[in-house]
Amino acid sequence: MIRTGKEYIDSLRGRKLNIYLFGKQVEDPVEHPMIRPSVNAVAATYDLAESNPELASAISPYTGERINRFLHIAASRDDVVNQNKMQRRLGQLTGTCFQRCVGMDALNSLHSVTWEIDEAYGTGYHQRFLNFVKFTQSNGYVIGGAMTDVKGDRSKPPHAQADLDLYVHVTKRTADGVYISGAKAHQTGCINSHWMIVMPTIRLGEADREFAIVGAVPVDAEGITYVYGRQSCDTRSMEEGDLDVGNANYGGQEAMVIFKDVFISNEYIFMDGEYDFAAMLVERFTCYHRRSYVCKSGVGDVLIGAAAAIADFNGVEKASHIRDKLVEMTHQNETIYSTGIASSYQSTQMKSGVYQCDDMIANVCKHHVTKMPYELARLAQDLAGGLMVTMPSQADLDHEELGPLLDKFLKGREGVDTRDRLRILRLIENITLGRNAVGYLTESMHGAGSPQAQRVQIARQSQLDYKKKLALRLAGAAGEEPDEDFEEYMARVFRVET
Amino acid sequence: MIRTGKEYIDSLRGRKLNIYLFGKQVEDPVEHPMIRPSVNAVAATYDLAESNPELASAISPYTGERINRFLHIAASRDDVVNQNKMQRRLGQLTGTCFQRCVGMDALNSLHSVTWEIDEAYGTGYHQRFLNFVKFTQSNGYVIGGAMTDVKGDRSKPPHAQADLDLYVHVTKRTADGVYISGAKAHQTGCINSHWMIVMPTIRLGEADREFAIVGAVPVDAEGITYVYGRQSCDTRSMEEGDLDVGNANYGGQEAMVIFKDVFISNEYIFMDGEYDFAAMLVERFTCYHRRSYVCKSGVGDVLIGAAAAIADFNGVEKASHIRDKLVEMTHQNETIYSTGIASSYQSTQMKSGVYQCDDMIANVCKHHVTKMPYELARLAQDLAGGLMVTMPSQADLDHEELGPLLDKFLKGREGVDTRDRLRILRLIENITLGRNAVGYLTESMHGAGSPQAQRVQIARQSQLDYKKKLALRLAGAAGEEPDEDFEEYMARVFRVET
Amino acid sequence: MIRTGKEYIDSLRGRKLNIYLFGKQVEDPVEHPMIRPSVNAVAATYDLAESNPELASAISPYTGERINRFLHIAASRDDVVNQNKMQRRLGQLTGTCFQRCVGMDALNSLHSVTWEIDEAYGTGYHQRFLNFVKFTQSNGYVIGGAMTDVKGDRSKPPHAQADLDLYVHVTKRTADGVYISGAKAHQTGCINSHWMIVMPTIRLGEADREFAIVGAVPVDAEGITYVYGRQSCDTRSMEEGDLDVGNANYGGQEAMVIFKDVFISNEYIFMDGEYDFAAMLVERFTCYHRRSYVCKSGVGDVLIGAAAAIADFNGVEKASHIRDKLVEMTHQNETIYSTGIASSYQSTQMKSGVYQCDDMIANVCKHHVTKMPYELARLAQDLAGGLMVTMPSQADLDHEELGPLLDKFLKGREGVDTRDRLRILRLIENITLGRNAVGYLTESMHGAGSPQAQRVQIARQSQLDYKKKLALRLAGAAGEEPDEDFEEYMARVFRVET
Amino acid sequence: MIRTGKEYIDSLRGRKLNIYLFGKQVEDPVEHPMIRPSVNAVAATYDLAESNPELASAISPYTGERINRFLHIAASRDDVVNQNKMQRRLGQLTGTCFQRCVGMDALNSLHSVTWEIDEAYGTGYHQRFLNFVKFTQSNGYVIGGAMTDVKGDRSKPPHAQADLDLYVHVTKRTADGVYISGAKAHQTGCINSHWMIVMPTIRLGEADREFAIVGAVPVDAEGITYVYGRQSCDTRSMEEGDLDVGNANYGGQEAMVIFKDVFISNEYIFMDGEYDFAAMLVERFTCYHRRSYVCKSGVGDVLIGAAAAIADFNGVEKASHIRDKLVEMTHQNETIYSTGIASSYQSTQMKSGVYQCDDMIANVCKHHVTKMPYELARLAQDLAGGLMVTMPSQADLDHEELGPLLDKFLKGREGVDTRDRLRILRLIENITLGRNAVGYLTESMHGAGSPQAQRVQIARQSQLDYKKKLALRLAGAAGEEPDEDFEEYMARVFRVET
Repeated sequence: MIRTGKEYIDSLRGRKLNIYLFGKQVEDPVEHPMIRPSVNAVAATYDLAESNPELASAISPYTGERINRFLHIAASRDDVVNQNKMQRRLGQLTGTCFQRCVGMDALNSLHSVTWEIDEAYGTGYHQRFLNFVKFTQSNGYVIGGAMTDVKGDRSKPPHAQADLDLYVHVTKRTADGVYISGAKAHQTGCINSHWMIVMPTIRLGEADREFAIVGAVPVDAEGITYVYGRQSCDTRSMEEGDLDVGNANYGGQEAMVIFKDVFISNEYIFMDGEYDFAAMLVERFTCYHRRSYVCKSGVGDVLIGAAAAIADFNGVEKASHIRDKLVEMTHQNETIYSTGIASSYQSTQMKSGVYQCDDMIANVCKHHVTKMPYELARLAQDLAGGLMVTMPSQADLDHEELGPLLDKFLKGREGVDTRDRLRILRLIENITLGRNAVGYLTESMHGAGSPQAQRVQIARQSQLDYKKKLALRLAGAAGEEPDEDFEEYMARVFRVET
Repeated sequence: MIRTGKEYIDSLRGRKLNIYLFGKQVEDPVEHPMIRPSVNAVAATYDLAESNPELASAISPYTGERINRFLHIAASRDDVVNQNKMQRRLGQLTGTCFQRCVGMDALNSLHSVTWEIDEAYGTGYHQRFLNFVKFTQSNGYVIGGAMTDVKGDRSKPPHAQADLDLYVHVTKRTADGVYISGAKAHQTGCINSHWMIVMPTIRLGEADREFAIVGAVPVDAEGITYVYGRQSCDTRSMEEGDLDVGNANYGGQEAMVIFKDVFISNEYIFMDGEYDFAAMLVERFTCYHRRSYVCKSGVGDVLIGAAAAIADFNGVEKASHIRDKLVEMTHQNETIYSTGIASSYQSTQMKSGVYQCDDMIANVCKHHVTKMPYELARLAQDLAGGLMVTMPSQADLDHEELGPLLDKFLKGREGVDTRDRLRILRLIENITLGRNAVGYLTESMHGAGSPQAQRVQIARQSQLDYKKKLALRLAGAAGEEPDEDFEEYMARVFRVET
Repeated sequence: MIRTGKEYIDSLRGRKLNIYLFGKQVEDPVEHPMIRPSVNAVAATYDLAESNPELASAISPYTGERINRFLHIAASRDDVVNQNKMQRRLGQLTGTCFQRCVGMDALNSLHSVTWEIDEAYGTGYHQRFLNFVKFTQSNGYVIGGAMTDVKGDRSKPPHAQADLDLYVHVTKRTADGVYISGAKAHQTGCINSHWMIVMPTIRLGEADREFAIVGAVPVDAEGITYVYGRQSCDTRSMEEGDLDVGNANYGGQEAMVIFKDVFISNEYIFMDGEYDFAAMLVERFTCYHRRSYVCKSGVGDVLIGAAAAIADFNGVEKASHIRDKLVEMTHQNETIYSTGIASSYQSTQMKSGVYQCDDMIANVCKHHVTKMPYELARLAQDLAGGLMVTMPSQADLDHEELGPLLDKFLKGREGVDTRDRLRILRLIENITLGRNAVGYLTESMHGAGSPQAQRVQIARQSQLDYKKKLALRLAGAAGEEPDEDFEEYMARVFRVET
Repeated sequence: MIRTGKEYIDSLRGRKLNIYLFGKQVEDPVEHPMIRPSVNAVAATYDLAESNPELASAISPYTGERINRFLHIAASRDDVVNQNKMQRRLGQLTGTCFQRCVGMDALNSLHSVTWEIDEAYGTGYHQRFLNFVKFTQSNGYVIGGAMTDVKGDRSKPPHAQADLDLYVHVTKRTADGVYISGAKAHQTGCINSHWMIVMPTIRLGEADREFAIVGAVPVDAEGITYVYGRQSCDTRSMEEGDLDVGNANYGGQEAMVIFKDVFISNEYIFMDGEYDFAAMLVERFTCYHRRSYVCKSGVGDVLIGAAAAIADFNGVEKASHIRDKLVEMTHQNETIYSTGIASSYQSTQMKSGVYQCDDMIANVCKHHVTKMPYELARLAQDLAGGLMVTMPSQADLDHEELGPLLDKFLKGREGVDTRDRLRILRLIENITLGRNAVGYLTESMHGAGSPQAQRVQIARQSQLDYKKKLALRLAGAAGEEPDEDFEEYMARVFRVET
C-alpha cells in the first residue's frame, strides 16, 4: 500500500501516459517543473495521513486496515465532518487544490447509488463496487473522478448532439466489457491519479442509454489522451528562482481527457444503461462535492495569513481599517467552513449504509464559495498595496548592482527582510491573480457546478408552499396548520439529534 | 408543573407587577391588547413542547421528569443543536420573539461558571444553582435573564460612574441576602417571566466588586418597576379589527426594569463579589446567545412564505427575477441557520459537564444576523410592491360603500381573495416596518451584542500568528511548521469528531 | 399667485374633497393631525422659493414672471440639474417626500410629447398644454400627476381586463370633453394638489385606444374619491406630545384616487386616442422621475446627521468603526446624488425645446435608490443602538414620578439632554421604521418603477452588440472597427461637451 | 509636433534609457515584445486625436494650435468632462491603461498651484510652468508624472527616515538648477514618456524643505534607472502566437524609477522649498486623478462585451440569469462613469483660471473603482465558465493531430469558430487574471490612493455638524436653521448652475 508522499511520487514514475503540453508530448510528468507542484499537492495528502492519522486516515471496515480518509466510505455523520476538517487542513498546508476530493466524493456517492440500482433492477453493481473499493484501499491509490463532458450544444441532450462524442458513451460491447469514446473537460488531478471513475454528467433519458455508463479505468489505459490546461502565470514555474512563482511547491492540475475506444472491464462497470439513475448519481456526488469546497477555507487561512503578514511588514498592522479588513476576511472564510461542516453534520444514513450530507446546506456552502474567495482576494490585494503588481523580477533582485538598490528602496518596516516582504507579495499574487487563483477563484466559481446550479437546487428545496402556509396562518388568512404535507422538509430541518 | 400554553397564561394572572405603559400603570397585563400578543408568543413554547415533545422538551437528569427544553441543561452536543431546531420552529410558528432564549442561555452558562467559581474559591454556588434549576424545572417556569445595564458614560467602569445606579449593584447586605439597585434596559419578556436572573453585563475590576452580583428574583419582588417599551405600530393592536396589525396573535416584549433595593435571598445568589468571573459569565452567555439568533431563520421562513404568497397573489410568481429573489432570501436565511447549528454541533464539554457551543462560529452566525434579515426585509418589500405602504385601513375595507369599491380595485390575480392579499401585505409590513420589525431587524442588530462586538470577538479568535506562519512557509520565507504553538486553535478547528 | 407656504395652506382650505380615512370622511384635511404634516412638506417648497429664489424658482419664458421651479419647463441642461439640487435641499429641510416632483416631471415630459404628437398627427395638443402651463404658473398651483393604474391581472392589457375600470379610461364623450373612470393607486400628494394630470401607465395597443387619455382635472372635480393610505406609525401624529412621532412637522402622503365619470374639458386634454404615444410619455416621464429620487440624498443627509448626533450623544463618536459607518453612509448617499446630477447634466434638447435627462444614468441612479437607503437605514440603526425600539413613550417621560427616573437611567454622555437623545432616536425610528420609512424606503423601492423596471431599461440601452465588437477586436477575432452602427450610443456617451 | 501614433512610436526609438528587465538591460524597448503593447496603448491616444479630434484634442490658448487633449489645460467645466469621455473611449479601444492621465492631471493641478505659490511668495513659477506647457504642446510630447515615493517606514516623515533617499529630495544646488536623488515606485508609462514631472507625494513640514521639489526632466536624463515591473502572465507576450495572451496589442506599463543626482534646470523647476504647498499639490492632483479612473468604465465595456460574446458563443445568451448578470455589470460600470463625470461637471474655476473637479464626488467615484471592477471581473468569470482556466495552449491548438481533436471538443454553439470562442476566453483571462488585470483590478484598487485614502477624504468633507443640525431641527430638539456656518458645503452642493 502506498503510504507516504514519497512512495506516492515514486508510484507515478515510469507510466506511459499520453500527455500534451504546449503542443508537445510530456515524457516524465513527475519531473516536469510545471507539473511537479501539482504532484506535490497530492503527495501532501499522504503525508498528512502519516503525521496526523486521526484527521486524515480511518480504519476501513472492508479491509480492516488503516487507510487514507480519501478512500474511506463514510460510516457516520462524524466521518463526513472529518472529511471537511481534513480538507481545510490540506488547504492550509498546500495553498492550492490537492485534487483528491472528486475521487472521495465519487466513491461515497457510488456506494449508495449502486446499492439502489441493484435494489431496483436486481443487478450486481454494489458488490463489484465494494470489490473495487477494497482494491483501491489495499493499494492506497489516488482515484480520479471524470464527470464533466464537453457538452457541445447545451440546448440538446447527448443523443441529439451532431457529434455523439461530445458526451462520453459506449461505442462497442464485448463479453469482457465495453469501449467508450468522448472527452471530459477540466479534469482535476487526472494525471496524478492511478485510476479514474468515468460518470455521466447530467440527467439522461431513455434515448441516452449508451451514455449511462459508469466505470473505472487505469489512467494509463490505451486510448486516453491528456491535454494539460494552461494556468495564469504557469510558466513562472519554469523560470529560474523560486520567488516570482509565489508558492513554489504546490499547484493544482486540470486537463482535458480524451477517450478513444477505451476499454472498461466488466468487473469495473458500476452502471451500464440504467439511465434513470444518472440524475441520482450526479445529485449525490454534487451534494458531497459542494460542501467539499470547505478546502477553500484552508486556502483562505493562508491568504488571511499573507494579508496579515504584509500589513505587519508594511508597519500598518495596527490601523483600525487594516484590522477590520482582516476580520471581514475571517468572517467570510469561517462562513464557508461552518456552512460546510453544518451540511456534513446534518448527514443522514442512506439505504446502503453510507452517510450523505445535507443538500440544501451543501448548496448554501458552495454558493458562498462562488463569491467569498473573490472578496477575500480583493481585500488581500487591498492590504498588499500596489507593489504586488509592479515589483521587479527575482532576476533583478539577484543582479549584482541593481539588487542592493532594490533592497534599499523596497524595504518595509525595520527588521523585515526585503525578500520576505516580496515573497509574501508574490504569494498573494499567486492566490489572487496567478497559478493558484485558478483554484481559489475560477474553480471556486465553477467546480461542482456554477453559481446558477446552486440557485436552482436551493429553489428546489425551498419548500415555498410550506412557508406560504406559515405566513397565511399568521396573517389570519388561513387557519390550518401547515405541517402535515411537508414531512421531508420537517425531517430535514427539524430532525431531533440524538 | 405548568405544561400548556393555557396553564402558562393562567399562571400570569393576578400578580402584582408595577408596570408602566403610556404613563399609566397596567392593571392586568395578560388582558392588555398591546401586551397579550407577547404572552401568546411565550405560550407557544409550552404548546410546542406538548405537540412535539422530542423537539421542545427533554428528560431532566435532575428531576427525572420531562421538562421544557428551555429549562434543560445541555448534556450533549445534540442537546445544543436541538435548542436551535426548536428555536427555528418557534420562529416559524409565531413570526416573532418568543422570549425564552435568554433564560435558557443564562441557565446553561451559569452551570459551568458557578462550577468554576467554586473550583477557584471553594464557594458553594454550583449546588445552590442546581437547586434553583430543579425548582424551576419542577414548576415549569419561564426564566428571564437580566443582563444589559443602562451604562451611562460608556468610557467609565461601573464604580466610576457619577451615579452608581447606572449599573445594578448591591446596596445593602443582611444575614439572609443582599439588596440591589439599578436598571436593566431592553429586557426581553421580563413581564412574562416567573423569575429573573440578574447578571453583570461587562468585565469587572476589583473596584467593581459590588457590581459582581448574580442572583434570581421573582418578577413580582418588591422594589421592581417595569416600563414597557414602545414598538413601531404598537397601538394597532388596540384598534378594532385584526387586519392592519399584520400578525394579530404574536408579538415581542421589551421593557426597562428598574430595581430599587430589591432583595435576593442567599439561596438564590450564584455570584457575589467574584468580579474576576464576570467576564467569563458574559462571554459564555453571549456565546450561547449569539447562535440562539437562529430563531430569526424561523421568522425568515415566514417572511419568505409571505413574499412567495404575495408574488403568487399578484400573478408574477413565475417571473425569473421573482424566483431569483426568493432564492436569495432562502440562501441568506439558511446561512443563518447553518452557521448557528454548526456552532452548536462544534460544542465541547465544560468541566461542569454542560456543553458549550463554538465561540468563533457563534459570532459568525450572529454577525450574519445583523445584516441578512435586513436584506430579506428589503427583498420582501421588493416583492410586496408599493401597496404595502399605501393601502387603506381595515375600517375603509369594512365601510359599506367604500369597501366593495376597494375590493374591486385592489384585486390581484383571479381566484385570490382581496383580503388575503391585503393580509399578507400587512404581515410583510409587520415584519419589515411594524411591530415585529423590532425583533426581526433592530434586535437582530443589537441583541446579544451589536455588530462591532462580534467583530472584536472574531478578531480575538482569528489566530493571525498561526496563519502568518502558514503563509510564510508556502512563500518560502520560513521553513518551520506552524502548528506547535496553536494547540487551542487546532483543537477547535481540527478536532476529529467521533 | 400663491407664493408662500402660508398662502398655499390657506388655498387648500374650504375645498370639497371626498376623502376617506379610517372608514370616515375627512372634513378638513388641512387641520387633520395625521394629514397636516404632508401639507407642511408641500408648503416648504413655497417657502424655499422665497428664501432661496435662485435655487427654487426660475423666470418663466411663458409668463415672464418668477415662478416656482416645480412649475418651470427646463430650458437648459442647468435647469435640469437645478431641479436635483432643489430636491436634495428640500429633502434636507423636511426629511420626507414633499410631493411636487411628479407634477414637475409630468409637465416637462408632456412638453415634448404633445409637440411630437402634433408633429405626427397635426393635432393641437402642444398649444393647449402651453396654455395650461401658463395658467398653473400664473396661479402658483401644485400639480399632481396621476399615472399608476391599479392594473388587476398583470398578464393582460387594459382592454382585456375582466373589469375595464382597472385602468382609467374614457367612458363617454361630449362636444365639451370626455368622462373618465378607473382608479390610480399610490398617488403622492394628490389631496395637497390643486390640479391633477391623468396619464396612462403602460405601453398601449390599438385596442387600448380609450385608455390613451391624458388630461388635467381640478382635484375637487365631481366624481373623485380619495382613500388615504395607512403608513407605519401613522396614528402617533394623533397622540398627545410631539416626541414619539420623531418628525412632528413633516410627512408624506399617498392615497388611492377613484374616478367615477369625471369630466375633462377639451382645453385640458393633451392626448386622446394616440395610443402609440403612451409608451413615449411613460418613458420620458420615468426618465425624469428616476433621477428625481435624488431627493432621497437630502433625506439621507438628515439620517446621517441623526446617526452622527446619536453617536455623539452616546459618547462613541470617535470610535473608528463608528466613523467608518458614517463614511459608508456618506459614500452611498453621495452616489445617489452624483448619479442623479450626472443624468441631468447629460440632458439633451428635445424637438419641442425642453431638455430631457440621460435615460441610462437616470436608471442607474434610481436603481441605487432601491438599495442604498436600506443600507443607510441599517447603518443608522446600528449606530442608534437598541434603545430606539425599546424606549418608553413620551407619556412615561412626562409622568411625575417615573419621568425623573427615566431621565436618570436614559442619560447619555455628560452634557446631553436626555430628551434630545431620545428625540434623535425617534427621528431615526421615523425614517427607518416609522412614517417616513414609507417614503425613504418602500417608495424608494417602488416609486418611478420597481427595481426590475430599471434593470429592463438598463438592458435595453446596454449596447451589447457594440461592446461585443470591442471585445472581439481586442481578442484578435475580428478586425473591424465597432463604431459605425452605434451612432446613438456614441452620441449619448461620447457627445463632446461645449 | 508629434501627431500620429506612428510618429510617436518613431520618437521613442534610439533613446538611451537605462532600463532593467529580468536582470538585464533592455536595448530597444520599442521592439521588446513584452514592452511594445504598452507603447501601442500610448500610441492610441495620438491616433484617437486624429480620428476624433473633437473628443481627443483641443485648441490651446497658449499656442493657438490644435493639440492633444492630454496636454490641454481645462478652460471650462466641459473641458474637464471631455477628459472623462476621452478616457472611457480609450479604455474601450485598448482594454488597458494608456498611461497619459497622470501627466494630464499633473499639468492641470500645477496650473493652479504654481499660481497660488506665486501669489503667496512672489515667486515666478507660474510663468515658467506656462513656458513648459507651451513647449510640450508644441512638440506633442507624452508627459509622465512621478509622485509616489517608496516611503520606507510609513510612521516617519521624509526627513526622519533612516535613509533620506526613501523620498526624492534635493542633494545639491548650483546656479543653473538642482540635483535630486531617490526613487519613485509604480510609475505608469514612464518609459513611454518624453518628459517626467517629479512631485512630492505627501504633506510636508518645515523640516522636509528639501523634499518640496517639483520639476520636469527628460526621461533620458543622466542618472535615471528604470526597473520594469513584472505583471501576471507577462511572458506570454514573448511566446509564439497571439492567442494565449488575450489582448495581444495592448498592455500597461509600470516601473520603478531610481534617481541618482539627476539635474533639473531652473527653467523646469515649479516648486522648490515651499513645503506648505506640497499638500495642496497632492490634493489637487489626486482630485483630478481619482475621477480619471473613469477610464476603467471603458475597459469595463470591453469586459461586458467579452462576457456577452462568450454567453452568445456558449448558446446561453437568453437565459434570464445570464442577462441579469450583464445588467449588473452594466449598472456598476455606468456608476463608475456617471460619478466620474458628475465630479467633472461640478468643476469650479480656480484663481489661475483652470477648472478643478469636485473633490467629494471624485472620491466617491474612485472608491467605487476599488470595488466594482472586481465584481465585474467575478461576473465575467461566472459567464466565461471554467474552460477559461483549463483550456490548452495555442501550441496545442496548432498541433497537427491534436488541433482538430480540440477543435471538435471545444466547440460552442453552431456557427461559432472554436478559436473565436477561445480568444474571448483568453481576453477575459487577460482582464481578470492576466496582464491587464494589473490595471483593471490592482491598480484600480491602489492607483490615485488606496481605498482608505478615499474614506479619509470623504470623512473630511462629510459636513457632519451641518447634518446633525438638520436632524436636530426635524427632531424638534433645536430650532435654529443649520445653514449659516456651512457656506462652503452649500456652495459645493447647492451651487445653482447657470
